[in-house]
Amino acid sequence: MDRWTDFDGRMREIKDLDGILGLLGWDEETYAPRSGRAPRGRHTGTLEAIRHERLSSPALGDVISTLLQDRSLPLERRAMVERVERRRERALRVPATLVKAMAEARSLTLAAWQEAKGSNDFAHLAPKLDRVLELSRERADCVRPLLGPAATRYDALLDDNEPGMTAARLGPLLAKLREFLVPLVARIGARPRPDTSFLRGKRFDPERQWQFTMRLLRDLGFDLDRGRQDRSAHPFTQGISEHDVRVTTRIFEDEPLSAISSTIHEAGHGMYEQGFLPAFHGTSIADAPSAGIHESQSRLWENQVGRSRAFWKRTLPLLKEFFPAELGQIDLEAFYRAVNFVEPGLIRVDADEVTYNLHILVRFELEVALLSGDLAVSDLPGAWNSKMKTYLGVSPKTDSEGCMQDIHWPWGAIGYFPTYTIGNLYSAQLMSAFEREVGGAEASIERGEYGVLLSWLRDKVHHRGWLDTAEETIRRATGSGLDPAPFMAYLEKKFGDLYP
Amino acid sequence: MDRWTDFDGRMREIKDLDGILGLLGWDEETYAPRSGRAPRGRHTGTLEAIRHERLSSPALGDVISTLLQDRSLPLERRAMVERVERRRERALRVPATLVKAMAEARSLTLAAWQEAKGSNDFAHLAPKLDRVLELSRERADCVRPLLGPAATRYDALLDDNEPGMTAARLGPLLAKLREFLVPLVARIGARPRPDTSFLRGKRFDPERQWQFTMRLLRDLGFDLDRGRQDRSAHPFTQGISEHDVRVTTRIFEDEPLSAISSTIHEAGHGMYEQGFLPAFHGTSIADAPSAGIHESQSRLWENQVGRSRAFWKRTLPLLKEFFPAELGQIDLEAFYRAVNFVEPGLIRVDADEVTYNLHILVRFELEVALLSGDLAVSDLPGAWNSKMKTYLGVSPKTDSEGCMQDIHWPWGAIGYFPTYTIGNLYSAQLMSAFEREVGGAEASIERGEYGVLLSWLRDKVHHRGWLDTAEETIRRATGSGLDPAPFMAYLEKKFGDLYP
Repeated sequence: MDRWTDFDGRMREIKDLDGILGLLGWDEETYAPRSGRAPRGRHTGTLEAIRHERLSSPALGDVISTLLQDRSLPLERRAMVERVERRRERALRVPATLVKAMAEARSLTLAAWQEAKGSNDFAHLAPKLDRVLELSRERADCVRPLLGPAATRYDALLDDNEPGMTAARLGPLLAKLREFLVPLVARIGARPRPDTSFLRGKRFDPERQWQFTMRLLRDLGFDLDRGRQDRSAHPFTQGISEHDVRVTTRIFEDEPLSAISSTIHEAGHGMYEQGFLPAFHGTSIADAPSAGIHESQSRLWENQVGRSRAFWKRTLPLLKEFFPAELGQIDLEAFYRAVNFVEPGLIRVDADEVTYNLHILVRFELEVALLSGDLAVSDLPGAWNSKMKTYLGVSPKTDSEGCMQDIHWPWGAIGYFPTYTIGNLYSAQLMSAFEREVGGAEASIERGEYGVLLSWLRDKVHHRGWLDTAEETIRRATGSGLDPAPFMAYLEKKFGDLYP
Repeated sequence: MDRWTDFDGRMREIKDLDGILGLLGWDEETYAPRSGRAPRGRHTGTLEAIRHERLSSPALGDVISTLLQDRSLPLERRAMVERVERRRERALRVPATLVKAMAEARSLTLAAWQEAKGSNDFAHLAPKLDRVLELSRERADCVRPLLGPAATRYDALLDDNEPGMTAARLGPLLAKLREFLVPLVARIGARPRPDTSFLRGKRFDPERQWQFTMRLLRDLGFDLDRGRQDRSAHPFTQGISEHDVRVTTRIFEDEPLSAISSTIHEAGHGMYEQGFLPAFHGTSIADAPSAGIHESQSRLWENQVGRSRAFWKRTLPLLKEFFPAELGQIDLEAFYRAVNFVEPGLIRVDADEVTYNLHILVRFELEVALLSGDLAVSDLPGAWNSKMKTYLGVSPKTDSEGCMQDIHWPWGAIGYFPTYTIGNLYSAQLMSAFEREVGGAEASIERGEYGVLLSWLRDKVHHRGWLDTAEETIRRATGSGLDPAPFMAYLEKKFGDLYP
């Protein structure tokens, strides 16, 4: 067997295991019976151990070394080898004892978080969170040498989600965004509130909502022959194979906009997962180069498209067909304003386009400080509340709706939050490049011809998957690296118009 | 690590892989998007290869040898080791090239079967079926040495599904059954047909049917916290873990009895899978000793319970609540007769309790002859039609509704059909033993107290799983080995009464 065939088989086996793990996760959040969760954890653990064994096998290491020395290796094959090598290096760097300690700490912390959130008792969570941070530092120290001498611990964790990104680069860029957003939020807050009462106090039949989201999925271009939608408590997208991409949504009877924006958001993720070139199916290229790139696709469809006037000009009449009694009388302008209602709030996942990134900024700044030890866990609630007041002008009454609202930190995900904002910034860069290169976004969206935009994204972002890094991808598509300017210009224009 | 801990870890890993493979299979038949099937085949292949690698690892062989020599090993542990060793021996005996050839032949034959069935073109299927038989003979020759010098090729294949059973033992027993059934069917055929017209020409709302089957599942004792029901084209039961057992049903608008009997049948399988003692969860004991034992549970609930007068005395009023307009006027006796309507037909899966086993006899006798070469594949249609005429008095007009109706042979499952009849025989033995030991079955079923029977089955059959062989299980529960007498007595009494 030649070297490439050997490598190729091993790479595809690992990819298959990832797909199966994806199915286990999807099933757990959708259909698994309540009591089936403990054994499911065991199944996942068994499969993850096998995946780790495959990834860290010396035979794989040998074939990778040889291939990387082969200068005649075609570029795409080299990229495949490098992607696997990246994962392999990390798998080898982090000792099994630490992986196990992290899994145990996570499990304990998640349980404590649920209790502490329920009883608003941060002190119950604090020691567990301390342990998670301690292990995260250990983990960062294992990986850090791979990133060069300048890398910080935070960089090492961020690199898991956003390969190549550093706090030194991200920090000033997010600070610039903050300096733009804080006064914008204040300015909007001083304007009259739009009337959104027509959405309140009504019941929107869940089955009709479901049918509408299915219609949206199809219209946007999500391929239901190669995917499906289900319901789950928290919406997510799971790629299982190149021909099996699953999204979920959640439906609230009294908030029809929730399922709609969830579905559009996940459709963005889902269409990305359906868009890798066939040549890369089953390989390490059939993947996103970073969480931020993945998120750019969901945010682009959810916000740039799904909250645009053009989109609702086309879509409101359709929505009215589903809910004639509830929405028959609403005019486009009122609906568009309701969809883009801006109000500083306490909860990230409920935030609008303008305030959302300030929620992320609070978390980014605090997790950097927590990891470095500059901020003690016991001081987190105070620091959280103070930043919320400064950036958003609101003060949580409890830690449950403050620093305990998200699952990320208890779950051990330090260095993940910024990728949401990176996704927002990328999405505006992409939309602006599309307008420059192709143009007529508004008109094609208004006609429901989403394929024009989707084809461009396929070509610029989806097709090549992880053949390029995130930075290369965004540069190739837009001509520049991560840049907050298009996003700020977008907000300025849209919300300047909405809140004159 | 001591020997037992080593073995135990390996055994549980294999069990986990089985559970995951079960989930992949379940998903493919229920929710997987249409185009996701090819990559799913790849996922399954990858996981099966890993399972095979684990099962055939020399380290597992070493620890098994050592443990089997240890006379102080507790009985239950010894049984666990023996069960894994049984699978291991078979995995080692059959060369990878043959496994691969079989998988390829199966895939080609299934495709040819679907085409041939659609166009009623047996000649298109014949060469593929020939190849399946040839490979089945090869496979049998690999395994046969494990079974002793007297074992035939057919025994080797039968042993996969019904360990310990042989054609020499089964043949005379099934012949006896045939001699009883053929005249019984003729006798019934000469009696007036009951009126079943009240079930025809009506539409039974599928959602109401679904709700009714869910109610039945709960009432019978299937634990929906540790399982679920879904829909699929062909009903099945899949155990995924001790706390996650999934059944499916299928609903026809114009045939309400179909979903009802499917659900009861699968509930029987499902309650069995939910019934292994906690001490055996995750071990090789948490399994059926044979397909016949598993089938005995589904048949017992479907037929002995679910087609009894006592069951319908309780259940018909409930069914009328779901379908007042459609069934409100029907009296118990008419319904009971309709549920037990006997008529020789062409299709096995539509057959009643009396004629069903004659369908199996046709298949058993023919597959024995096909495997030995006494019957050429090209002569199968003629032989099929002739036996159908002799045993059931009916003649298929096409091979599609004749020898091509079932998926089993094209799928490579030679030696499986008899387990259906074995299940029927066991079920009658068990019911008769229950009546002897506990008594009052009719009364408790009529009161909906299915738990009395379920507890007895848990104790006698479910709890111990594969701790005993099938033969040991049935002897312990009923006092004798496989015996057609109770089944024949049951049919004689029930249908003598229905068709006096």
